Amino acid sequence: MQRRFSRAALLAAFPLLAAAPLSAQATPTEGSGVAWDIVEGLTTEIGARLAGSPEEGRARVWAEAKLNALGFENVKIEPFRTLAWTRGEEHAKLTVPYPHTLAIAALGLSAPTPARGLQADLVYFPTLDALRAAPDGSLKGKIAFVDHAMRAAQDGSGYGPYGDVRRRGPSIASQKGAAAIVIRSAGTDSHRNPHTGVTVFAKGVEAIPAGAVSNPDADLIARIAKRGKPMKIDLTLLGKPFPNAPSGNVVADLPGRDPSLPKIVLACHLDSWDLATGAIDDASGCGIVTAAALAAQKDGKTLRTIRVLWAGNEEMGVTGGGSKAYAEMHGTEPHAVAMESDFGADKVWQLRLTLADGNEALAEKLKAALWPMGIVYNDKPATGGADVSGIIAKQELAVIDLGQDGMHYFDLHHTPDDTLDKVDPVALQQNVDAWTAVLNVIANEPGEIARVPGSKGEG
Amino acid sequence: MQRRFSRAALLAAFPLLAAAPLSAQATPTEGSGVAWDIVEGLTTEIGARLAGSPEEGRARVWAEAKLNALGFENVKIEPFRTLAWTRGEEHAKLTVPYPHTLAIAALGLSAPTPARGLQADLVYFPTLDALRAAPDGSLKGKIAFVDHAMRAAQDGSGYGPYGDVRRRGPSIASQKGAAAIVIRSAGTDSHRNPHTGVTVFAKGVEAIPAGAVSNPDADLIARIAKRGKPMKIDLTLLGKPFPNAPSGNVVADLPGRDPSLPKIVLACHLDSWDLATGAIDDASGCGIVTAAALAAQKDGKTLRTIRVLWAGNEEMGVTGGGSKAYAEMHGTEPHAVAMESDFGADKVWQLRLTLADGNEALAEKLKAALWPMGIVYNDKPATGGADVSGIIAKQELAVIDLGQDGMHYFDLHHTPDDTLDKVDPVALQQNVDAWTAVLNVIANEPGEIARVPGSKGEG
Repeated sequence: MQRRFSRAALLAAFPLLAAAPLSAQATPTEGSGVAWDIVEGLTTEIGARLAGSPEEGRARVWAEAKLNALGFENVKIEPFRTLAWTRGEEHAKLTVPYPHTLAIAALGLSAPTPARGLQADLVYFPTLDALRAAPDGSLKGKIAFVDHAMRAAQDGSGYGPYGDVRRRGPSIASQKGAAAIVIRSAGTDSHRNPHTGVTVFAKGVEAIPAGAVSNPDADLIARIAKRGKPMKIDLTLLGKPFPNAPSGNVVADLPGRDPSLPKIVLACHLDSWDLATGAIDDASGCGIVTAAALAAQKDGKTLRTIRVLWAGNEEMGVTGGGSKAYAEMHGTEPHAVAMESDFGADKVWQLRLTLADGNEALAEKLKAALWPMGIVYNDKPATGGADVSGIIAKQELAVIDLGQDGMHYFDLHHTPDDTLDKVDPVALQQNVDAWTAVLNVIANEPGEIARVPGSKGEG
Repeated sequence: MQRRFSRAALLAAFPLLAAAPLSAQATPTEGSGVAWDIVEGLTTEIGARLAGSPEEGRARVWAEAKLNALGFENVKIEPFRTLAWTRGEEHAKLTVPYPHTLAIAALGLSAPTPARGLQADLVYFPTLDALRAAPDGSLKGKIAFVDHAMRAAQDGSGYGPYGDVRRRGPSIASQKGAAAIVIRSAGTDSHRNPHTGVTVFAKGVEAIPAGAVSNPDADLIARIAKRGKPMKIDLTLLGKPFPNAPSGNVVADLPGRDPSLPKIVLACHLDSWDLATGAIDDASGCGIVTAAALAAQKDGKTLRTIRVLWAGNEEMGVTGGGSKAYAEMHGTEPHAVAMESDFGADKVWQLRLTLADGNEALAEKLKAALWPMGIVYNDKPATGGADVSGIIAKQELAVIDLGQDGMHYFDLHHTPDDTLDKVDPVALQQNVDAWTAVLNVIANEPGEIARVPGSKGEG
């Protein structure tokens, strides 16, 4: 469809167009405040910051400067070495029975194909269990395709089982003899944007090339498989592991009135996947925890010290990233409570707690603080997240989860679409307000926040 | 955010997973009927079909077989030669002040950069008029970036003025001495999917490399421009024009009871852009017009012959594509009415007519036929579309436009996202029903459908 309008007609209708000020028309919704400033700055001035990359290093320097400028104390970059991965050239084409270019992204920690690619049969499996059921050796020289049916859920619960196609599928395919694996993205959108993410090869299993195609491409493969026609693929994925890569955490404190009391640690992660600027995963988390810490002390110091941890290498830290490094470096300092924000920027709707017996009154104070915001209590225990899992496990900490609405999180998660325009400034501020309400309680709690025997942060 | 579930727990919760049938879980909403069958088949078995490409040639063979199988008569491939274009390697990186990889696609008919790319200053213009106001020669050796503010509109009216950034921007930039131009995509979505599309270099103006970045990338450039920092870009766009390329129309008839009466021609276009499978642009149009033609004759022949034209090279046919070729080959056969479907697959909401004086009764019959479907009459004249513009201008034809809802069309138009999952089978069938209602009137109209002096299809 084409329509044409003359310039004269256009200017007659919109006389101000010719004199439009810079970006008056182009700028999307803008937010304000500390959280927005961090998300906007990190995505604009740094952008993608893959763990182990020079960009992640630039992000640490940016973070250090930002946290100092915001008035934090003891701001430190704490370097560590980690297993990371670098993306290479990547493309895929279905060649038989119908030629189609596929939108694909390699999975983190997967092995590279030969430089000229792999040309092989593509074998369709509707589920991960169907792949598990394939006879050993039956995939020799072939490439497995694993489909699945992840749907959106407010609590993100689909990511556990369906995310396993990405986490475990490559290892299982390798055990069956497959030369490589392609999966349907672990995502809930319908855009030509593949969802990357880390995979894990089980001990003793040979790493193979592994990639995810976008949901529309997976639909296409499913439709062709349904026709019962054999498929062939030409697959090039040149990304490869990067052992002993440089990463680091950035740690900063807002000291409390009584520094001898165990501190509150609030975590997010600084690294992002490389396909986008990491606005929701996890610049938003860093914006939220940092803004809330400052808001909790805006009228003076809290009783306890509040620490923020902007962790390095969360995304590929399965064998030891920022979480492990933090626990090693700070495992002897007393902590009271760990919290993490790493589920986007949509509104908080749910509170979960892992508190020791004896902290019932504290639990009631927390529920009451969030009650006016419509945040509902769920008695499933809080588990924290990857960045605080090391310190939680080490010190058996109390944990508070502020559950964000995940209905759209897996539309964007680990895709090229994780950009600033996806962050709603109003929802971002609601997060800051909810975190501040929690901090107003726990950072001023004079009583003992007891250890929780056996508490283990969930990575 | 990561959560893990054991396989045992998963199977306990979902015991049928292990035995899931092929694609039971994966297949998205499926439609039925002729229109869906055409859209599903063309996008699955052919896919992307750029004008002048071998894929467009395969699509013609597919179309010929499909139209014969559906019972059409005189099914013919009618080859012609045309100016087309082939995409090459393309990538862009903002290098100064902050490094960012940009999601970019070259515009059709643009010139290639050197193989190693262009490294140059990027100069921000908020509007096309701001570019027009730049002094001659002021862009020498530089690359222009043109922003704009296209918003969604039900009647697609934003595409006229804002689409000119793509159509005319490159020519204007070249006249100012620019080495290349990058524009904000002419689109209304916020995904990392650039919108390609044809550009037109004015006579005597040197063709330059021209590309569109996605809206989130354009937002990023606007934010950096707002910081007042000079920008540099490294731009590689190796696509280049392909003169005298092979294309062709596919034409097929459902003969009427009185073949001497001027016929009704219903058009769509068979070519698509190369970034996706062309589901909404314009496999859907071909599905709609073809299904409606068959539905109009399901209880016996209509009075007049109904012809379908699946045109070649609509997308780059600015100097002569399927429309011109059809007018040349069929310009002496009497036609009564021309209609075209080339605005996606969303529901028809509006009727527009270009009928001669004396056809008032026919107009009332058409309005009455669509009244039960909630389709509103708009007295702005119908203009057809690119594929029927040649024959309309040549024969001064009557034109009927069934306006589709365009609120989401420019989210997908000319992007990698133009895939089958975007077609709602219910909306697609509503189109078929509306077209059938119109055909039931006009293909059985015994009276004269007079020429409309000066009627010119809009390309």
